[in-house]
Amino acid sequence: MASEPALGPGELFLAEVREQPAALARLLEREAEYEAVARTLAAAPAEVIRLVGHGSSDNAASFGVYAFGLLARRTALRDSISLTVYYGAELDLAGAAVVALSQSGRTPDVVEYVRRSRAAGATTIAVTNEPGSPLGEAAAAVLPLAAGPEHAVAASKTYLNQVAALALLAGCLAGRRVETVAALRTVAELLEANLAPLERAVHELAVAFAYVGRMYVVGRGLEYATARETALKLTETCRVAAEPLTATDLAHGPIAALDPLFPVWAIASRDEALPAVVDAVGRARAAGATVVASGSAASEIDGAAYRLPVPEAPEAVLAPLLSIVPGQLFAAALAQAKGLDADRPAGLTKVTLAR
Amino acid sequence: MASEPALGPGELFLAEVREQPAALARLLEREAEYEAVARTLAAAPAEVIRLVGHGSSDNAASFGVYAFGLLARRTALRDSISLTVYYGAELDLAGAAVVALSQSGRTPDVVEYVRRSRAAGATTIAVTNEPGSPLGEAAAAVLPLAAGPEHAVAASKTYLNQVAALALLAGCLAGRRVETVAALRTVAELLEANLAPLERAVHELAVAFAYVGRMYVVGRGLEYATARETALKLTETCRVAAEPLTATDLAHGPIAALDPLFPVWAIASRDEALPAVVDAVGRARAAGATVVASGSAASEIDGAAYRLPVPEAPEAVLAPLLSIVPGQLFAAALAQAKGLDADRPAGLTKVTLAR
Repeated sequence: MASEPALGPGELFLAEVREQPAALARLLEREAEYEAVARTLAAAPAEVIRLVGHGSSDNAASFGVYAFGLLARRTALRDSISLTVYYGAELDLAGAAVVALSQSGRTPDVVEYVRRSRAAGATTIAVTNEPGSPLGEAAAAVLPLAAGPEHAVAASKTYLNQVAALALLAGCLAGRRVETVAALRTVAELLEANLAPLERAVHELAVAFAYVGRMYVVGRGLEYATARETALKLTETCRVAAEPLTATDLAHGPIAALDPLFPVWAIASRDEALPAVVDAVGRARAAGATVVASGSAASEIDGAAYRLPVPEAPEAVLAPLLSIVPGQLFAAALAQAKGLDADRPAGLTKVTLAR
Repeated sequence: MASEPALGPGELFLAEVREQPAALARLLEREAEYEAVARTLAAAPAEVIRLVGHGSSDNAASFGVYAFGLLARRTALRDSISLTVYYGAELDLAGAAVVALSQSGRTPDVVEYVRRSRAAGATTIAVTNEPGSPLGEAAAAVLPLAAGPEHAVAASKTYLNQVAALALLAGCLAGRRVETVAALRTVAELLEANLAPLERAVHELAVAFAYVGRMYVVGRGLEYATARETALKLTETCRVAAEPLTATDLAHGPIAALDPLFPVWAIASRDEALPAVVDAVGRARAAGATVVASGSAASEIDGAAYRLPVPEAPEAVLAPLLSIVPGQLFAAALAQAKGLDADRPAGLTKVTLAR
């Protein structure tokens, strides 16, 4: 094979973050498949939609709870995989609706959950970047993420496309395919336009955070998924102990651990959960914590030392697609500042086969 | 009033931890009320049981998912409070089954969730230490925790009784009231017998951990609730950034942040999730982390630097009632070693009114 120019540490991850608008556009070309599967989902007798996944896929599932709730007025839950797969609990899954998320389609207990629930009579849908994977084979229906191959160990474009896939599926379920696709196309354009300004902004922050060992990332509601995924990027690529918390979780205990060397990152979008985030940040500031604010309402966060604003989404429910980018780019910049390789974090592999 | 001898820092918290066997016994005197409410719950047409709470109550709800699943073959979920209360999502809650958890019964958005779901036609049950509270008034049925007044800001006996209350409710729902009550009585005896040995064991550990700033607490399945509550105790009383993770979460990213100064606490009970915990600890040890193992299967954790064993529960599903005590006692000892007051952590109050 012809040799390609060698990539430096973290360049794969950064290239995939930058590729996200194009990856999202590729997903939207598959809208007809989402529409068809949404009809299958609508036909399932279940009252609730069961979401299963680990890691970034589980973070996307946190968004799914809100996407299905707000767009389709349906209760979705992040189901316990261990209850069914390890404990063998005899839940009645006949008629259940299952949406399983895995970038690789090879997460063993997610595959096993789908096999068991399908055998019990559930409607099973796999959302994966690898439709030919064991997960794709185990589920009755497969929806492609169409993100293109992801090479960096830390997920970026596959997470973004999982979030978009759940919004698209929920939009189709609500009979709003056309509007949802149009809004997602606008999101892709906004993402593209926002990349360069954010890349410029994160470097100052990375220098300031080079010695930070622990951090809280706070979000609420729709943006709890973003808080989880931002924290995961910082933890896996930068070795920061970054813990995601809902705004109210912070007040129920962790606030006591804060001090000026323990910063808080607040995901602030312009929606109904914003007052809770503003309230949490006020408590964090009172404890002396340095605050970073990102999101479309970053300007509303009083006393933030750093702000990483993003454009407002055309529909409020789609904000998490834009809000995740500051965390991804900051993680890339901080890893570089610390001399770490975001493409190959210690102890991790691209496909996690852990129980 | 006659003056009582002044209590030193952390003595309230420690006294309430020690009082847990008696608090559990008080709860069991109310078994008839649990039986009656379980009949109401059984009559609700809902397929799923919605659990709501924040902080320690939400940690107990994590246990509830397994208690209802394993004892009563029912799906329970930790429902999104913000979806209904802040976003006003129009979910169909007619016929829903709601179990709301709050020690004080004064958590504003939990009360509001119950009001809204009850108005929509849900069966609503409050589990609280204050039956005359706003939550008790908002719900159609009230189950007492009967833990007695809790004065330390950090919850202990109310958490234990919430876990027991969910097990008792699920046991009654399964038609197994007599067996469940008998097993819980045995748990109270085992708790009592285990307190003194654990109190002796935690001091050595506290000295070793005096300078630890961050920690992961790992559990899986039934014991994920214990991991969450242990981490919360360490965070609020000892100012350690302790993050709870499922065993598989650890492998999906956070493992990359570990090193010899970043310890991992593993909750290891003898049940079907144990192999996942053993696997996670193996990865943590490979990353050089110091490991603490607690639970009935602490002896199964290879390479643990410290072990805090507890007796095996008479039914595996009740293990979390015994597994939580090492974390509570360790938090008390570590707070004392660090000169912190576990009774009054900075920035916290007994009733959290945060959004």
